[in-house]
Amino acid sequence: MTDPTAAELDRNDPLARFTDRFHPSEGLVAYLDGNSLGRPLRVTAERLGDFVAEDWGGRLIRAWDEQWMALPFALGDRIAAATLGAAAGQTVVADSTTVLLYKLMRAAVDARPGRHEIVLDDDNFPTDRFVAEGIARERGLRIRWISVDPARGVELEQVRAAIGPDTALVVLSHVAYRSGFLADLAGITRAVHDAGALVLWDLCHSVGSVPIPLDEADVDLAVGCTYKYLNGGPGAPAFGYVARRLQSELEQPVQGWMGAADVFAMGDGFVPGEGMRRFLSGTPPVVGMLAMQHMLDLIEEAGIHAIREKSVALTEHALRRVEAQLVPLGVTIASPLASAERGSHVTIRHPEFRAVTARLWERGVIPDFRAPDGLRLGLSPLSTSFTEVQLGIDAIEAALLEAVHDSARPASTAPPA
Amino acid sequence: MTDPTAAELDRNDPLARFTDRFHPSEGLVAYLDGNSLGRPLRVTAERLGDFVAEDWGGRLIRAWDEQWMALPFALGDRIAAATLGAAAGQTVVADSTTVLLYKLMRAAVDARPGRHEIVLDDDNFPTDRFVAEGIARERGLRIRWISVDPARGVELEQVRAAIGPDTALVVLSHVAYRSGFLADLAGITRAVHDAGALVLWDLCHSVGSVPIPLDEADVDLAVGCTYKYLNGGPGAPAFGYVARRLQSELEQPVQGWMGAADVFAMGDGFVPGEGMRRFLSGTPPVVGMLAMQHMLDLIEEAGIHAIREKSVALTEHALRRVEAQLVPLGVTIASPLASAERGSHVTIRHPEFRAVTARLWERGVIPDFRAPDGLRLGLSPLSTSFTEVQLGIDAIEAALLEAVHDSARPASTAPPA
Repeated sequence: MTDPTAAELDRNDPLARFTDRFHPSEGLVAYLDGNSLGRPLRVTAERLGDFVAEDWGGRLIRAWDEQWMALPFALGDRIAAATLGAAAGQTVVADSTTVLLYKLMRAAVDARPGRHEIVLDDDNFPTDRFVAEGIARERGLRIRWISVDPARGVELEQVRAAIGPDTALVVLSHVAYRSGFLADLAGITRAVHDAGALVLWDLCHSVGSVPIPLDEADVDLAVGCTYKYLNGGPGAPAFGYVARRLQSELEQPVQGWMGAADVFAMGDGFVPGEGMRRFLSGTPPVVGMLAMQHMLDLIEEAGIHAIREKSVALTEHALRRVEAQLVPLGVTIASPLASAERGSHVTIRHPEFRAVTARLWERGVIPDFRAPDGLRLGLSPLSTSFTEVQLGIDAIEAALLEAVHDSARPASTAPPA
Repeated sequence: MTDPTAAELDRNDPLARFTDRFHPSEGLVAYLDGNSLGRPLRVTAERLGDFVAEDWGGRLIRAWDEQWMALPFALGDRIAAATLGAAAGQTVVADSTTVLLYKLMRAAVDARPGRHEIVLDDDNFPTDRFVAEGIARERGLRIRWISVDPARGVELEQVRAAIGPDTALVVLSHVAYRSGFLADLAGITRAVHDAGALVLWDLCHSVGSVPIPLDEADVDLAVGCTYKYLNGGPGAPAFGYVARRLQSELEQPVQGWMGAADVFAMGDGFVPGEGMRRFLSGTPPVVGMLAMQHMLDLIEEAGIHAIREKSVALTEHALRRVEAQLVPLGVTIASPLASAERGSHVTIRHPEFRAVTARLWERGVIPDFRAPDGLRLGLSPLSTSFTEVQLGIDAIEAALLEAVHDSARPASTAPPA
């Protein structure tokens, strides 16, 4: 049996209709970076204008009472229901991913004062590692690094071996930013709890493409990004999840007016709010919270499980075409081959990929280059067609052949004096 | 000589042409809350749509390299030149005001390890007080409160009396959020430096309406809000200023990838960036940074000194009309009467103002109510006309007469059983 063609896969794709909902981009042949910055929807341009005219310009300060004060919670609950498997009242939208990581990591380690270690894998996203290192230094803790295979990610047995009675907090990525490895969220969470520690999952590279069972897996804390598969726009604010059973126990360090029990009392002394309110700090970043709502409409319509099915089909198609077209040119695959162990992106490697990326960008084929030699193909399920993946692989093949050819030529000699 | 009428003042206003640049709001009679949420410009609705179509949707991930990575610095420099009297390379746009206050206060107290006090006035904005209290608790410091008259604000002599060899940091508002009192920024900064301490100025209620001489006054640190007189939209990100001479000495605690010396190295261990980069943490909130650029166009065109002249004329007109129309009804003025001691808002008080505010909002007259009995009239110089102020005062007079009349009636008795 031959592999299905991209055209066949598109014809049989139950979510194919969604690709047309995204804003067209002139000259774009294949967008393979939806795991870094999701594309805007067609409706987003118009609705941002409406927001300026009607909500901000029309209602002015009254809109705070009418809708914006509730938005961090309402939008958090919506993300939770559509993508996180989490009941209401445990998720807020606020701050950047980095700031939320700081606030929740600090809250967690301060809630486990007798324990002195934060456990991370050494291939975790830089900001996770940097934030943890800063907190370890300021709180007198140690980091215990789990050394992982960068073409895979952190495994349950590695976590079991690393944690113990001195572990305060384990911080891991659900989907590894480099390899796309999909960690065993439920198994690792259980193991962490068995050791009496807390776990914080970074969901940046999974949310919106992989169903996440936060409540079912009894996760403690999570932080995620909204500008990748939630298409919130560049630098859109992050979301944070704190299991209800922990909310009153935890206190985060950036205590600002929006986290206070009575926001407009303007009184003396900070009293942390109930529930998720205490995890807010400053004024909610309303303008940055608009576009993700349009994407949530689509995710709700499609359903996260159907989205995951398409995601798997997209990465499987990409891997088949890489095997057929690029591996013969010396490309290696730096992502798990088993679909159950993979999120919605795959990374491939070749020494010429830095030069290849520059050529591809000029031609409207946009993957993400990761030093020293990685090309990351992020396949956002609702905006990406199988044909687009095929065009992307074809373009990589062509650019790679050119790059290899160019670098094989003898260097030009200096002109005669 | 009689006072000039609002119509006369508008006719002679050299900045009158700017009021028409703001987005109209149906049914709006007088917007007196520009110090809480500035109005959008007419161009903002259109330009946000263009941004979605062209920059985000068109350039996609390429726009990070092409423009967005530089935006926190470029926009910071622009705010600095137009409004802060600060040379380039000392200002960034990032985070919320509260988060930036946390980062810069932490950086400051950690840089003065032998000193144990943070000095604030007890009528400073709640988030400033809450953040300082949290930092004092976590760093083992004390807060020394300067008790101020809430109808004025913090005076130079009060600061001199409060600071000493144990003062690490003084945190004050340039314009008091309640009274509008304009503090002696240069004199207080000198006094703080004489005591060997650092000063952080909260510019939220002054930036864009009052010229701020940060470099000339040798200020150490400042944080300000962009959604008031910079019209950045609800929850737009804040800006932070760190004097060049201090930048390499200070380290802030939220060390994330965008603050690292080499952002995309993805390497081991955090190395703080040079200059202002180290004060960034997470991904720049690009969508929230757009609208303020449109307002900066206007501020640059008008000039901050001309804006201040109009601001003074607006608050003087408001105070004259309050004296003439509202003081006879029992209203008191809770703002400085001397224009040199006042920012761009005035606060008036009356026991009925909570009820009055509800009536005013229904009639398209929008001041800000501050418990228990304050009405804040924020007069954003470029969007507010003298006639608008007059209409606002007239509406307050009418609503106050009604409210006093209503509350003077005997309470209705229960209906017969």
